[in-house]
Amino acid sequence: MLTRDRANSTITTIAEIREFLGDRLSTAPSVREQHGKDQTWAPGAPPDAVAFVRNTLEVQKIVTICAMHQTPVIAYGTGTSLEGHITAPHGGITVDLSQMNAILSVNAADLDARVEAGVTRKTLNTYLRDQGLFFPIDPGADASLGGMAATRASGTNAVHYGTMRENVMGLTAVMANGEIIRTGTRAKKSSAGYDLTRLLVGSEGTLGIITEVGLKLYGIPEAMTAGVCAFPSVEAACNATIETIQLGIPVARIELVDEEHVKALNAYSKLDLKIAPTLFLEFHGTVAYAREQIEMFREIAASHGAGPLEWAEKEEDRQKLWQARHDAFWATRAIAPGKQDVFSTDVCVPISRLAECVIATQDDLRANNLFGPIIGHVGDGNFHVVLYCDPLDEAEVTRVKSFYERLIHRAIAMEGTCTGEHGVGSGKMKFLEAEHGKALDVMRQIKQALDPLNIMNPGKILAL
Amino acid sequence: MLTRDRANSTITTIAEIREFLGDRLSTAPSVREQHGKDQTWAPGAPPDAVAFVRNTLEVQKIVTICAMHQTPVIAYGTGTSLEGHITAPHGGITVDLSQMNAILSVNAADLDARVEAGVTRKTLNTYLRDQGLFFPIDPGADASLGGMAATRASGTNAVHYGTMRENVMGLTAVMANGEIIRTGTRAKKSSAGYDLTRLLVGSEGTLGIITEVGLKLYGIPEAMTAGVCAFPSVEAACNATIETIQLGIPVARIELVDEEHVKALNAYSKLDLKIAPTLFLEFHGTVAYAREQIEMFREIAASHGAGPLEWAEKEEDRQKLWQARHDAFWATRAIAPGKQDVFSTDVCVPISRLAECVIATQDDLRANNLFGPIIGHVGDGNFHVVLYCDPLDEAEVTRVKSFYERLIHRAIAMEGTCTGEHGVGSGKMKFLEAEHGKALDVMRQIKQALDPLNIMNPGKILAL
Repeated sequence: MLTRDRANSTITTIAEIREFLGDRLSTAPSVREQHGKDQTWAPGAPPDAVAFVRNTLEVQKIVTICAMHQTPVIAYGTGTSLEGHITAPHGGITVDLSQMNAILSVNAADLDARVEAGVTRKTLNTYLRDQGLFFPIDPGADASLGGMAATRASGTNAVHYGTMRENVMGLTAVMANGEIIRTGTRAKKSSAGYDLTRLLVGSEGTLGIITEVGLKLYGIPEAMTAGVCAFPSVEAACNATIETIQLGIPVARIELVDEEHVKALNAYSKLDLKIAPTLFLEFHGTVAYAREQIEMFREIAASHGAGPLEWAEKEEDRQKLWQARHDAFWATRAIAPGKQDVFSTDVCVPISRLAECVIATQDDLRANNLFGPIIGHVGDGNFHVVLYCDPLDEAEVTRVKSFYERLIHRAIAMEGTCTGEHGVGSGKMKFLEAEHGKALDVMRQIKQALDPLNIMNPGKILAL
Repeated sequence: MLTRDRANSTITTIAEIREFLGDRLSTAPSVREQHGKDQTWAPGAPPDAVAFVRNTLEVQKIVTICAMHQTPVIAYGTGTSLEGHITAPHGGITVDLSQMNAILSVNAADLDARVEAGVTRKTLNTYLRDQGLFFPIDPGADASLGGMAATRASGTNAVHYGTMRENVMGLTAVMANGEIIRTGTRAKKSSAGYDLTRLLVGSEGTLGIITEVGLKLYGIPEAMTAGVCAFPSVEAACNATIETIQLGIPVARIELVDEEHVKALNAYSKLDLKIAPTLFLEFHGTVAYAREQIEMFREIAASHGAGPLEWAEKEEDRQKLWQARHDAFWATRAIAPGKQDVFSTDVCVPISRLAECVIATQDDLRANNLFGPIIGHVGDGNFHVVLYCDPLDEAEVTRVKSFYERLIHRAIAMEGTCTGEHGVGSGKMKFLEAEHGKALDVMRQIKQALDPLNIMNPGKILAL
């Protein structure tokens, strides 16, 4: 009966939405499949229909109809999330925001912009380049800015520029009751009430659907110099990073790539890097200051036995270096034949514990005969393990799964978090209790207050 | 009847708290008076009793007892707030956290610390100095770090270091139901669920009582160079500031002091500054980079007709300069004889609108024959008006009050906020609707979910 009720209410929901969206509401199996699966190994779950919206009012109408029939609503940007954020385990309507792709305003004097949720970061940066401005948050994928806000994304630049938490100034969102709210102002700071912007950033569509994002921008620095530096050990690389940050050197990127990854990069990107734990770095500033930072870093690195230290001041060389770093995922995939299923997970710990955590993780991989190259936003204490297994090898799958659990509990035990930047989705729900304890009750109270019918991306972040 | 019920439940509350706090629960009129009044002109309202707590468990016990009897609970740090945050308009128990003054941990490698809520920022900085570390947020007063978190404080350094929003890593708080929660971890970033840290920062004790604060620290820069520079107009000073920030010069402080304030500072602090809109500046960095920043700023200032430009590289001179800036409040008070009642308010607008907003405000003051020196954290678009009036001059009081309303609505109309850093308290509640619109409903839903009995600092932020 319940199932038939649900089917009936879904049919009604779809009919009511179709009335105003017409053929921008799709129930085609291929469209539903594509929208029910992200880039994880987790099985997808297609929604009952996909609505391609063009403005906030359409989102409001959809949410209102869904609320009336208690139909789930799932927000979808580019589908590049990694923890099952956009699957529809309870069916429902996926709201695809990719056609909401207008850049609404750019204020160079205030270093801010407002965009519709479907604008991707690369689109924004292409648009900004002529004005000498950029938006620094770079999670690798060309994700939508609404999705990046919803998942509190960060990436390689976060060590200097912060994450979406620090770089979203305000939002427009449609809440579960159909109300459109606008959070934040264009003022740089405010003490005027609860920080709803920060509450929605990272809420993964479970409290409301973000339809517009106000962002901080930055002037493109005069100099951006990238480099690579091989270290005798993970510990030496981490300690050099700690000293760099303590000295206040405003390193813009500082990425740890482990031996396995270096091997893969050499093969895939035709580089000849030394096989060793390696830091990929970037310094921003005036020409003189970028050079000063490099010299300071060179001294620190040398004191930890590191080298050679190679710099790429030319834009072309810099791009090539970071392209290689960004290709890491594909590079490791290429050297793991027969292991078709990969997934990438992340944890984040205090930087003083990073070396210990990475080394314990490498030991764990070896002890369990697993292939899992490690790459880390080492300045933030954040690292990724790209895990490989043969999905048909049951024993290996079991070993991967238990390794994954240990990885996360190890990070939490070191006063860290189960995810630094990938988010919770459905994949990491079960770890939140260990990380947050009773604070999880407060999250539930908020969810229940703002979405009492549990229609907003149900089955994500919180088990209710 | 209601009153008698309330009186009875308060008597019971006090008796139950006294059982375990003994003489650390005071009902002495002088203690209650002192705890019911902050540094505003608004009339105070004393609580029924003041509890001097020593740990989180005591706070938990008090909140649990207050919940049982529906008695209000008000958190109190140093009483330096400016919008009636700590008054007790409905009576109740004030929880004075000043004896919770332990610095719990300092991690130099991770640049973080954890303190009890009653530790003041100066105490922390004195403690940190030997390790070459500091906590930058400086609201002027030597406020408690718990209070600074609760009010989302900022101040002169915010342009570079951010506000409490960016610098609180995590919190321990006692919620209205008596649950102790711990938000955040020691990891620099996380995507693991709702950002309860940011929800509690700025919630002014209306959602929970903060008992411990995790903070980001910074290495003391090699060079800190301060200076003053007179400008031909407010507009020129604002435009120079905009260019400075656009160029990515990481100015650590950039403060606008208007003519009235300069006159007052000259008299009070025995300076001989030119009577003109003036920027007080500070640059942090390596010696070479601080000099480079100064030279870059000097060029920008010159292009706006500014000068003379005077620098204080010596620590003694730098301290003297900022002492004068911090004495601004007392300085203006000294030149406004007969006007005993002062209050300081703040608004914040996008920096591109700042000159327009300050000039309109100065015109408004003149048109209404009011004395209100202006001082601004110009890099953030945030400014203060210190308003004077003779409390016995009814007409003047009326003019001040309507000026105040116009000031705030002007800021909101310019896409700004009714308060950049002072907070809402009881003073600015009525402006939140104009600023937040329907988002205010979401704040109310959260308040009702987390504090259904409305015992946590009632009558602040939200009218229920």
